[in-house]
Order: sequence, then C-alpha cells, then structure tokens
Amino acid sequence: MTDLPAVTVLGLGPMGRALAAALAASGHPTTVWNRSPGKADGLAAREAASLADAVHASPVVLACLVDYAALTSALEPLRADWGDRVLVNLGSGTPAQARATTGWAAARGIAYLDGAILTPTPTIGTPAAVVLCSGGPDVHAAAAGTLASLGGTTTHLGDDPGLANAYDVALLDLFATAVHGVVHAFALAAAEHVPATALAPFATGIGALLPEMITRFARQLDGGTHPGDRSTIASAGSAIRHVTATARGHGLDTGALTAAGAVIDRAIADGHGADGLSRLTRTLLGA
Amino acid sequence: MTDLPAVTVLGLGPMGRALAAALAASGHPTTVWNRSPGKADGLAAREAASLADAVHASPVVLACLVDYAALTSALEPLRADWGDRVLVNLGSGTPAQARATTGWAAARGIAYLDGAILTPTPTIGTPAAVVLCSGGPDVHAAAAGTLASLGGTTTHLGDDPGLANAYDVALLDLFATAVHGVVHAFALAAAEHVPATALAPFATGIGALLPEMITRFARQLDGGTHPGDRSTIASAGSAIRHVTATARGHGLDTGALTAAGAVIDRAIADGHGADGLSRLTRTLLGA
Ligand SMILES: NC(=O)c1ccc[n+]([C@@H]2O[C@H](COP(=O)([O-])OP(=O)(O)OC[C@H]3O[C@@H](n4cnc5c(N)ncnc54)[C@H](OP(=O)(O)O)[C@@H]3O)[C@@H](O)[C@H]2O)c1
Ligand SMILES: NC(=O)c1ccc[n+]([C@@H]2O[C@H](COP(=O)([O-])OP(=O)(O)OC[C@H]3O[C@@H](n4cnc5c(N)ncnc54)[C@H](OP(=O)(O)O)[C@@H]3O)[C@@H](O)[C@H]2O)c1
Repeated sequence: MTDLPAVTVLGLGPMGRALAAALAASGHPTTVWNRSPGKADGLAAREAASLADAVHASPVVLACLVDYAALTSALEPLRADWGDRVLVNLGSGTPAQARATTGWAAARGIAYLDGAILTPTPTIGTPAAVVLCSGGPDVHAAAAGTLASLGGTTTHLGDDPGLANAYDVALLDLFATAVHGVVHAFALAAAEHVPATALAPFATGIGALLPEMITRFARQLDGGTHPGDRSTIASAGSAIRHVTATARGHGLDTGALTAAGAVIDRAIADGHGADGLSRLTRTLLGA
Repeated sequence: MTDLPAVTVLGLGPMGRALAAALAASGHPTTVWNRSPGKADGLAAREAASLADAVHASPVVLACLVDYAALTSALEPLRADWGDRVLVNLGSGTPAQARATTGWAAARGIAYLDGAILTPTPTIGTPAAVVLCSGGPDVHAAAAGTLASLGGTTTHLGDDPGLANAYDVALLDLFATAVHGVVHAFALAAAEHVPATALAPFATGIGALLPEMITRFARQLDGGTHPGDRSTIASAGSAIRHVTATARGHGLDTGALTAAGAVIDRAIADGHGADGLSRLTRTLLGA
C-alpha cells in the first residue's frame, strides 16, 4: 500500500472530500487543503498548513473547487516551483475555461490536465465512478495511476484540453434540465395533492426510460432519420400543453415547459410534426 | 382464448395501434376505428364501418386519441344507447378535463373510466406496460379484465376521476422536461463537435442516475429535510451557469436552462444555497 505516490486534494466540498477519502482508502499518502480550514474532519488525510505546503507535498495535485476562477485565484499568488508536479482540475467549467487554464498553467510552468467527474459523491472509490479527462499524453500519463484510484472508469478523450468540459457541459445540460423536471414534477404533484412518495414509484419508471431513449436518439441523429412510429412531435406537443396548462393553473413557474413547447411548435411549423422526438435536436441547431 | 370479451379501440395512432395489437394477441375479438380510415393495416382486428358500429361491437371501448376534445367531438354527434358499455379514455389530458369528461359522459348515460398510459408503445402487451386509471369502482370493475390484457401493471388510484391525470401530468412534466434536456444536450454536444453516438454512453449513465435520485428526493420532500451533504444548490447554480454560457456562446436556445437557473438563484437568495437539490421543489411552491 505505501508504495503508492502521495496525492494532494485542493478543495473539500462534498466532492473534494469524497476524492480525498477514496485516495486515502486506496493507500495514497493524502494531503488536503481547503480555503476555509477545518473541513478535513474525519478524513484519513493530513491537512496542509498552507496552499504552498499542499502543492509541495505531492507529485499529483487534484483540484476540485466550485469553478475555474476559484482555482486560478487561489493559485495565482503562489510563487511555487511546480517541477514535475501535475495539476489535475476536476471542477466543472466550460471548454473555453479549460483551454484558457491550460495556457495559464503553461505560462507558470505547471503541467495541467483537465477533467470532469460525471457521477455523484457516493460513487467515488467504487466501480460506478466515471471521470473524463483531456490534455496532452504526458500529463495524462503522469496522472493516470492516481485517477485509477478513484475507482470506476476514467476516459482520456484526447489532447485538446477542452474536450472533457465539452462532454461535461452537454452532460450537465442533460442532468440539470432533468433535475429541474424532477423537482418541478414533484411541485406539480404537490399542487394536485399527490405526495412525493406516492408519485415516486411511477416517476422512477419514467426516469428509467431515458437510457434506451438516449441510445436510440443518438443513433437516429448520427444516421439522420427520425421515425415517428412510436410517438410523434405533434403528440408530444399536445401532451406538453396539458402539463403547461395544469402547472399555470396552479400558479407554478412554466419557464422550462414553455421553452420545451416552443421548440416542439417550431418543429411542427417546419413540417416535422409526424417525425420522432430526436428530430428536435436538429430544430435546436436551426436545421 | 375466445372466451375473452370483445373490445373496441378508438384511435389508431402509434399508441392505439399498440393497444389493438396487444388486445387481439391476448385473444380479445377486437374492433378498431380511426377518424381517417385505412390505419388498421397489419392489425388482427376488424375495422368498423362507422363509429356507431365500433361502439356497438364491444362491452368495453378503449379510446386513445390525441386529446379530450378529439374524443368528445367524435362521440358528441353519436346518438347511441351505451347500455352497460364502459368507455375507458387512455389519452393524455388534465385532471380538470378528466373530471369534466366524467360529467359529460354521465349526462349521456355513458359509464366512464379515466386512464393514462405511462410507457411507450413497445411495452404494451409486455410486463413493462404501466397504466393508471381512476373513477368509480363499478366502471373500474367492468374494465379491469380488459386492461389486464395490456400486460404489465394497471393501478386504480381511486374514485376521483381526476387522479390518473393528476399523476400523468406530473409524470409528463418530468418526461417532457427530461426529453428536452436530452435533445438539447445532443445539440450542445454537436455545437462542440461531439457526435451524438460519442456522447451517448456517458449520457445513458447520467440518465441512469435519475431513479435513485427521484426516490431520495421524494423521501426528503415528504420528510421535510434537504441535506446538502452530496451536492448543494449553490454548486448546481455554478454548474448550470457554465452550461448556459456555453450554449449561449453557440447561439442555442437557453430557455429551459435559464428557467432552471432562476429557480436555483431564488433558492440561494432565500438562504438555501447549502441545501440539497430536493429543496428546489419547495422553492417552486413558494415555500
Ligand atoms: N458534488 C457532486 O456530486 C459533484 C459531481 C460532479 C462534479 N462536481 C463538481 O466538483 C466541483 C466541486 O463540487 P463540490 O460538490 O465539492 O462543492 P462546491 O460547492 O462546488 O465547491 C466547494 C469548494 O470550492 C471552494 N471554493 C469556492 N470558492 C473558492 C475560492 N474563491 N477560492 C478557493 N476555494 C473556493 C470551497 O472552499 P470553502 O469551503 O472555503 O468555501 C470548497 O472547497 C464543482 O465544480 C462541481 O460541479 C460535483
Ligand atoms: N405514443 C406513445 O408513446 C404514448 C405514450 C403514452 C401516452 N400516449 C398518449 O396516447 C394518446 C394517443 O397517442 P398516439 O401516440 O397514438 O398518437 P396521437 O398523435 O397523440 O393521436 C393520434 C390519434 O388521434 C386521432 N385524432 C386526432 N384528432 C382527432 C379528432 N379531432 N377526432 C378524432 N380523432 C382524432 C388521430 O386520428 P387521425 O389518424 O384521423 O388523425 C389518431 O387516431 C395521446 O394522448 C398520447 O399522449 C402516447
């Protein structure tokens, strides 16, 4: 166990804590740092006395802060020689931020790998963890062993450092929109006097439809065909109008439903009412 | 097999055809009717010569039209004695429409059961089919055997005929919003030059997170606690800003993301930034 290299985790929010716990449990001597001290309770890790101490402690430094500005503003004042150390940024951000931060790091002699975590904190250190990364092969090679200790699968998408965040923003788009659908569905159910736990067994069934649908839509999009044999855009437009009317009748916000309905209406106006729902991606792209 | 009662299906869109195929395959003598003739090709069912013929052919009449107005406008001119027949409406609509249509039917001496189908056409006639219904116990008893032939599970939610649609609008809310997230994620990926089939394996993983999340959120909502130990509303707000900025940079519609972000911002302004995401339902309800 003690043969594993030391690792430092910057940031002890829920995800940073999960990363540090998994790395320590794997046997990496683990150092942690957080802007506000005292967040390391219960971790089998050493809390660094300073950010400089944290960086110097390990050849691999994993950062998991709320955003890119937090990371660069924290590291900016640090006059450290990074030597062969590699900085892996696992926080969420845009492809442009990942590319800019690669340049920012290069100007300071910091070997930098960009990454993104796709699964929630309880998965870290288990086979269910999914991590993406992108950047040059050297930085990837330097960090790959440590990333493997997070469990699950890490995919290196390529040399362009913006790739991990390109995937991540699209996946966060799906996640954030679906989460909004979940919390809004519970609000609409509550307005109809249906308790959340009564709706949940049926709602989980609706959620479970997504993986098959996603795979099918992807095939249809890359193949350029959008059959309406199972259900049509026109039928979905009718259904969303019932939902929107009911939500509005209860005084609930209908912003997301209205936006989704507008894309459907545009597709119908363009003559695609009899097509399947995957056609809506092309409508969004103006095609 | 031939002991099963006759059944009529009104409406031969994708779902009506799936219902008729499953009922015929179960051994029900099946009669079908569609406003535009010629949609019965390939079904082991008799196409009725008229709507009156279709209604008279069977003790149970299942309707699956695009909406409630389509059903009542089709049946309105029919001067039929419904006798002991029961009309089961499986099309989507609002709770108010279900209640109004129950009254409309009662005024015409039609025993009426309201229902909703929660699963896609390929599930019909398989154990994966999920159907809800609501209405008086007599109409439910008259239709239950026929509904069982659709496969899977049919749940009678209670006597209030609006109940099936109350559940259905909440579930369609989740479904329609999540589908919008899927098609929008593929559009954002395309704008970042990520093919749909490259994103899909990761996107299915995001989709697969929903059932556990739905169950957990329901428990938290009914219990009134919203722990932020896994991830917080503030962190989700930061993530959705990255997505929105990237989508806007590509000229993509950001209506749903903006609406979801606004609820998050409201929750943060109300002091709930450190809470978990299930708290957003209460924000939507103005609490
Ligand atoms: N939680 C999840 O399920 C999950 C899943 C996938 C990806 N992620 C991503 O992982 C990253 C971290 O998420 P999280 O859930 O752990 O919590 P978070 O709330 O997004 O981030 C909290 C961390 O950011 C630090 N921070 C904020 N502003 C800072 C600043 N100006 N300078 C230095 N540090 C600053 C906080 O330090 P203080 O304690 O001092 O405020 C804390 O360490 C985010 O980008 C998130 O999108 C999270
Ligand atoms: N497909 C699914 O996966 C699915 C899943 C769950 C629930 N549902 C619900 O099931 C219902 C039917 O859906 P669907 O997919 O079969 O297709 P749909 O496009 O929603 O409905 C098509 C049917 O409605 C009929 N119709 C439309 N306007 C009419 C009018 N004014 N008078 C009489 N008939 C009229 C059509 O007849 P014509 O052929 O003459 O136009 C056709 O029979 C909808 O409420 C839908 O929300 C569907």
